[in-house]
Amino acid sequence: MNYRMIGYLLGVILIIEAALLLLPAAVALGYGENVAPFLITIGILLVISLPNIIFKPKNKRIFAREGFITVAAGWILMSLFGALPFTLDGAIPRYVDAFFETVSGFTTTGATILSEIESLPRGILFWRSLTHWIGGMGVLVFMLAILPSANGETMHLMRAEVPGPTKGKLVPKMRHTALILYSIYVALTVIMIFALLLCKMPIYDAVVTSFATAGTGGFAVLNNSIAGYNNPAAEWVIAIFMMLFGINFNLYFFILIGKIKDVFKSGELRTYLAIAAVATIATTINIASTFNNMSDAIRAAFFQVMSIMSTTGFSTVDFNLWPALSRTIIIILMFIGACAGSTAGGLKVSRVIILFKSIKCEIRRVLRPNSVNVVRLDGDVVPDDTVHSVTRYFTIYMAIFLASVLIISVDGFSFETNFTAALACINNVGPGLGVVGPMGNFLGYSDLSTIILSLTMLIGRLEIMPMIILFSPFAWKKR
Amino acid sequence: MNYRMIGYLLGVILIIEAALLLLPAAVALGYGENVAPFLITIGILLVISLPNIIFKPKNKRIFAREGFITVAAGWILMSLFGALPFTLDGAIPRYVDAFFETVSGFTTTGATILSEIESLPRGILFWRSLTHWIGGMGVLVFMLAILPSANGETMHLMRAEVPGPTKGKLVPKMRHTALILYSIYVALTVIMIFALLLCKMPIYDAVVTSFATAGTGGFAVLNNSIAGYNNPAAEWVIAIFMMLFGINFNLYFFILIGKIKDVFKSGELRTYLAIAAVATIATTINIASTFNNMSDAIRAAFFQVMSIMSTTGFSTVDFNLWPALSRTIIIILMFIGACAGSTAGGLKVSRVIILFKSIKCEIRRVLRPNSVNVVRLDGDVVPDDTVHSVTRYFTIYMAIFLASVLIISVDGFSFETNFTAALACINNVGPGLGVVGPMGNFLGYSDLSTIILSLTMLIGRLEIMPMIILFSPFAWKKR
Repeated sequence: MNYRMIGYLLGVILIIEAALLLLPAAVALGYGENVAPFLITIGILLVISLPNIIFKPKNKRIFAREGFITVAAGWILMSLFGALPFTLDGAIPRYVDAFFETVSGFTTTGATILSEIESLPRGILFWRSLTHWIGGMGVLVFMLAILPSANGETMHLMRAEVPGPTKGKLVPKMRHTALILYSIYVALTVIMIFALLLCKMPIYDAVVTSFATAGTGGFAVLNNSIAGYNNPAAEWVIAIFMMLFGINFNLYFFILIGKIKDVFKSGELRTYLAIAAVATIATTINIASTFNNMSDAIRAAFFQVMSIMSTTGFSTVDFNLWPALSRTIIIILMFIGACAGSTAGGLKVSRVIILFKSIKCEIRRVLRPNSVNVVRLDGDVVPDDTVHSVTRYFTIYMAIFLASVLIISVDGFSFETNFTAALACINNVGPGLGVVGPMGNFLGYSDLSTIILSLTMLIGRLEIMPMIILFSPFAWKKR
Repeated sequence: MNYRMIGYLLGVILIIEAALLLLPAAVALGYGENVAPFLITIGILLVISLPNIIFKPKNKRIFAREGFITVAAGWILMSLFGALPFTLDGAIPRYVDAFFETVSGFTTTGATILSEIESLPRGILFWRSLTHWIGGMGVLVFMLAILPSANGETMHLMRAEVPGPTKGKLVPKMRHTALILYSIYVALTVIMIFALLLCKMPIYDAVVTSFATAGTGGFAVLNNSIAGYNNPAAEWVIAIFMMLFGINFNLYFFILIGKIKDVFKSGELRTYLAIAAVATIATTINIASTFNNMSDAIRAAFFQVMSIMSTTGFSTVDFNLWPALSRTIIIILMFIGACAGSTAGGLKVSRVIILFKSIKCEIRRVLRPNSVNVVRLDGDVVPDDTVHSVTRYFTIYMAIFLASVLIISVDGFSFETNFTAALACINNVGPGLGVVGPMGNFLGYSDLSTIILSLTMLIGRLEIMPMIILFSPFAWKKR
């Protein structure tokens, strides 16, 4: 185990976090608020990280396990230190709650323990929303773009970080890839900010809402989430951008280089849009009677479907009060999530496609054991190894999910609350149903459950393996 | 497709059903009740099946697809005709409800649409409980023992029927195997009847309760299930027999031939007992405060854990009123079920073991891609194909389960009710939580949902594939 290199990489991550904390500090300064919580945190981060990065390690070679451990430890450390400003400021007095809120931010979940949000300082809320934006593309893709390119030792980091089973590489060089993805991310965020300004949203709100949308996070700065703006135009803009941020970023790159044909060939994109369309239509019909006119019902249904599918978690209505069918649709969409290679969470549409195609394969296999049956995606054969690893992924995912539900049920909430709380956390959605519905929050859970749910968010965001390996004795054994 | 042979086999199944219907007819006669419903049904069965079995087909060769289709169609036909006495008698006036009740019987689920049971005729209730016993070992294993042994063409039937991924064969000859399993089944049932008589249970109740226990079904003849007897000794007896009927029947065979050592080597048995022990202890602690003394709490916890794990579904208390943790434990146990090769439903402990071991394998694989990682069960290497087919099975199972939840949610019940209703049906448990809890029933669901849940029970009982293949256009295509 190359501890020196792990320490170095973690040091770099924390230095970047210190730099990013300057932004909310500036906002706090601008609004005349208390800057101390940010400065103290930055100081602590510098003291801890500088000794690790002053001297570059001579041996830069790291293997899969170091990569996974660095990623997992990196996210946990970012959250542990990122939580400090909330507690130092007094916005979230209990540290365990602040940790939950920060994990929820960095993992772009958007689950909150806060009920009263509007009265909190602007700087603090800016940091809360910024964590979504940072988490969105993954702090390590971010780091890749800044780190001097070495001889490929960062590949394992990349493997652990890029969400979903992506097909093909964009460009051969990792650093280049990271820069392209990051540029698309920034560009889309800026466009969204302008679109929201056109809808007459205040600049501060436009910025933080765009942060939360880009990362498919879902923290809002109003108590009633997006419903609080009472701004149908802005709701459409946000809904459309939630849909866009749920699409594989590779496809935007294809558009940039003029390969627009390739975009429409993507089976994942078509399935994503088809599921969204069917879910929107079914939900609209199911909830229509509770609205005064059809356009309100369509907007609410489309917004909520895109919010859940993209695993953002904003709300314009209290979908906890919707009829059973719409609520169940929401639960199914939470499982599915959006496209691989986006900032969204969930199983990812491509995994769901592979799972369903492998079912079809299994039927053919049982009927004709001697025939060759393969899973195809966009015309290409998906290797058996990939198919198996997807079904294994699903198995681990369900096991961890059900274990979370079991543990947090000790607190005595209803099955619906516990089930959707764990589901919203592992898929990085944010709100669930029942007590943790869009108008509720996670504050009622005990400290144990709060920590379990924090881990569940991290496990979901890092696509399970890095976190399991961090806590697996096998990984720490000497070879 | 060998339609002639399928018709012949289905004819044999229905003739057997007609013969079995003589038993409840005799009971009805003995209690001076209306025998007509049974005689009419027997008449219809004879008219339909006799033309199909008078001449044996010349070509007896059947392949996997004919085997699966025969099994699936056989269970559906048995249920369609088996439902007639309930409606003809007026005990269950609506045929769709009677169909649900009969599917629930044959699949050994035990989910009911009845709230008032005690006032129904004895003959009708005897038939209702007998369906569990018939379903228990599978009417086709039953048929195998009676059918003249042919040159192996029944093997595919066997493959579709015997529950769970069993390891090794008992004896080479199928017919012999069926006879042995069937003898063990009958012997255990008879022992249980005597044990219940010793507990001073009336003979009629002892017989029908043993039928329901042997098949791990769960239909009781009192409105309050086993709680209605108020008989702690009988509760212990039933709980222990539920545990015994959840054990792989191969192990009883090993005991019979003196290989007792092999029994204790079984990893599945040890895991089954360990899960049961942990669940019983956790539940006891969780519910202790609601009981006057510890022994009552232990008995209630042990009874309910074994009832759910063995997927029987009897109840001695209204566990729908238990705290959240115990309710969640019940839900997790529903997923797991009991041992492969028993009469129980659920995923089966051996599948759960393989799923967990494949997770462990995956971790090792990610960390050391070049090392050889295999899943072992009882010391033997489980072939990769088996491991993959188990993860695929789990995927299909979850997809069907969630689809059921989605469809029945149209009726507007709570998520907890719909989730546990579908869960109790696919795992052949019986009662769920909420509206379908142990003191509730399935009557509130619409006809569509009733049929969907009936199909879900059949899919679960036949381990998915036969039912999917029956409804898959691919299977019916000419080669």
